Amino acid sequence: MAQQIKIKPRLAKGFRDFLPSEMLKRQYVIDTIEGVFQLFGYEPLQTPVLELRDTLFGKYGEDAEQLIYSAQHGRSKSDEVAMRYDLTVPLSRVVAQYENDISFPFRRYQISPVWRGERPQRGRYREFFQCDADIVGVSGMEADAEIISVMNTVYQRLNLPQPIIKINNRKLLTGMGVFSDVIDSQLPDLYRSIDKFDKIGAEGVEKELIERGIPGYAVKRMMDLVQIRDEGNLNLNLLERQIGHIEVANEGIDELRSMAMYLDALGVPQSAYEFDFTMVRGLSYYTGPIFETIIQEPNLGSITGGGRYDNLIGLFRRESLPTVGTSLGIERIIDIMTELDLFPSHVADTVVDILVTVFDDETQIASSRLASQLRKANIRAELYMSDGKFKLGKQFAYADKKGIPLVATLGPDEVANGRVSIKRLSDAKEVDVLQADVVDAVVGLMQIEF
Amino acid sequence: MAQQIKIKPRLAKGFRDFLPSEMLKRQYVIDTIEGVFQLFGYEPLQTPVLELRDTLFGKYGEDAEQLIYSAQHGRSKSDEVAMRYDLTVPLSRVVAQYENDISFPFRRYQISPVWRGERPQRGRYREFFQCDADIVGVSGMEADAEIISVMNTVYQRLNLPQPIIKINNRKLLTGMGVFSDVIDSQLPDLYRSIDKFDKIGAEGVEKELIERGIPGYAVKRMMDLVQIRDEGNLNLNLLERQIGHIEVANEGIDELRSMAMYLDALGVPQSAYEFDFTMVRGLSYYTGPIFETIIQEPNLGSITGGGRYDNLIGLFRRESLPTVGTSLGIERIIDIMTELDLFPSHVADTVVDILVTVFDDETQIASSRLASQLRKANIRAELYMSDGKFKLGKQFAYADKKGIPLVATLGPDEVANGRVSIKRLSDAKEVDVLQADVVDAVVGLMQIEF
Repeated sequence: MAQQIKIKPRLAKGFRDFLPSEMLKRQYVIDTIEGVFQLFGYEPLQTPVLELRDTLFGKYGEDAEQLIYSAQHGRSKSDEVAMRYDLTVPLSRVVAQYENDISFPFRRYQISPVWRGERPQRGRYREFFQCDADIVGVSGMEADAEIISVMNTVYQRLNLPQPIIKINNRKLLTGMGVFSDVIDSQLPDLYRSIDKFDKIGAEGVEKELIERGIPGYAVKRMMDLVQIRDEGNLNLNLLERQIGHIEVANEGIDELRSMAMYLDALGVPQSAYEFDFTMVRGLSYYTGPIFETIIQEPNLGSITGGGRYDNLIGLFRRESLPTVGTSLGIERIIDIMTELDLFPSHVADTVVDILVTVFDDETQIASSRLASQLRKANIRAELYMSDGKFKLGKQFAYADKKGIPLVATLGPDEVANGRVSIKRLSDAKEVDVLQADVVDAVVGLMQIEF
Repeated sequence: MAQQIKIKPRLAKGFRDFLPSEMLKRQYVIDTIEGVFQLFGYEPLQTPVLELRDTLFGKYGEDAEQLIYSAQHGRSKSDEVAMRYDLTVPLSRVVAQYENDISFPFRRYQISPVWRGERPQRGRYREFFQCDADIVGVSGMEADAEIISVMNTVYQRLNLPQPIIKINNRKLLTGMGVFSDVIDSQLPDLYRSIDKFDKIGAEGVEKELIERGIPGYAVKRMMDLVQIRDEGNLNLNLLERQIGHIEVANEGIDELRSMAMYLDALGVPQSAYEFDFTMVRGLSYYTGPIFETIIQEPNLGSITGGGRYDNLIGLFRRESLPTVGTSLGIERIIDIMTELDLFPSHVADTVVDILVTVFDDETQIASSRLASQLRKANIRAELYMSDGKFKLGKQFAYADKKGIPLVATLGPDEVANGRVSIKRLSDAKEVDVLQADVVDAVVGLMQIEF
């Protein structure tokens, strides 16, 4: 060891460790999401954490790019690579790079961490997982509806309470801007302010827009339009009457109507989503429908983002390919599920089915053999180890603390008679069986348990 | 989009993408390994990619630390964090940081990528996965034997051809050094040269040791000792006769004998491992038994490393904790399995069970409904999408190219009669059923398939 100075064990701010019981919960959420992605035919893709800087920069906007981590090692101080900021830009690179190896439409998913050097705060981390599903190569609204059906199926399987998928369309927002006399160069400012609707309310947004130099009458028109609300999808009709004569707005309305028809065919009920014209999404690359999901209680912000971005792949390839996708934010989903205690009871605190205790030095080999016998039958068996301290009470307490459901004991008598005793901790039921029958006994006790 | 210059889609050297068919193979290997880790009671842990520099530096030796990537983002140019180099040092930090939340012995696994800025070459990447299992808190050889049993079980389940687990002990190597009159300060040099035995042979090692200034008679003694070979474990007896009087050597021999006894109890046959005194392992932190696994054909270097490191946790904590573990190198395992075609036939090129075709615009909604019905029954159904181009031949060709086993067709007649036709591509078997019976029909065709 080069250096024997003690280092205080700690992490940098914004980074987290997940100990086993937390990991098993995370794994349950990730496995559920992955299962739904595969159910719709999305295939796994993995890209490296480190991308060339040229791939990442120039895609997210300058503010975001301040948050991208560059990386370099001692041997070469070149600043060539950087850590991925999301999974969307790497997907766009992959599609352009391997277009001959990929069958289109390309449905891919990726479940991976990303890094953003944001100021750490409650619920915001510098390293966090994204679960993305995207379809590349389809411009029709059947694709956008499928993505929403994927999201909705995930929420159902995780049993999330009353999620609402908010849907808007960048084309509609552009049309509203045209109608309200907001000039093109002011549209990004417009989006940025409207995006704060949830936080600062209608008055706050109005004030900001006027401060940004948009004329009062334009602001008023705009605010009236984004706040159009009616039951179900009727707000589309209201909007059409007002701005349906503007081509881009009309396209946007047609898209949302077509989406609603496909959502119905896919079994997504109208109660699961709403068209909300105040929802904008921050990222600059969206070109059509956009969506995010909120849960009212507890409200930790949106748990998904997504939308159509038909031009992004064109940054890496002569012709772009129409693409739509979603990114599920598992960090917030896990926070909500923890707060509401939504994890099913089979999500245990441990992977272990049975602890095989050790009575003394003499019987240690017999205990090892028993553990090995159980594992051959695919029973997850932990062999107790304690460097020669064999108090049985301590071993049972260890199993109890860890949440291990079953404990096997074999003392000298059992070893001599080829028997073993299995105890179920939840109800103290105990069986004493021949070692040859131990697998059946364990399976029996486990089946009653779950 | 801030910038419309086309970027050539590519990766930095040493980094890789995994397209879906490769990912499904990787996932099979990872799932098998994870299953074995859990079978022995190892629990999942996840640590962040970015650790404080102080945590990583001073642990691996100066050469290795040149390869660690530092990371920083535009907003704060501080060099506070770096990318993990392995999973062992983060484990040591975690054990010290959360010692009150952890039950000991702590068996944990972690399957995660690590980064090393090495010169990229065949089979060596800058980002690669490690699959680690370690037991913290046990000094007895039952722990070391269990780790070897974990490794052996993984090889069996992956069906790897004749892996040999080579076992040595750092204490033995120290004892040999004492016996041969190699002074303590020369031991690291000695290890480094012997480590090259496989590559440069006995003569090469001898030459290097003499160049390093170790006296000729010491080199000769050392070379005779490390090359002791005999059937099974009898080489331990030979070694004991020669250097058993040296305390540290005697301890090392006792440990390996004890390990052999536990390996027998755990059902690891003698043919699965050998004591090989020329095997050293590069890393400086090992303190007792060390092991690695080689496969003769194809020989891509060792596919696992591991051993006992009783002092590492002591760098983060007043008292250290005895620890032993292994790191399985899946990159090489996957290369070997690919070269020898060892993937079982159920590892498919796609996740999709059935492609639901679309006959024309009119029937698209009916096809959507059918896909949704299949998904409700947990059948992974892809809905064909093509922006209005509905040639059925092209849809079947798409399914065939992707390796999708089943194809569902419903044209206007089927829609009118509430029927659907399912075709299995492997043998062209086709059934025509009521839509209400489609799930049973698909399950039937899938069961014959697999």
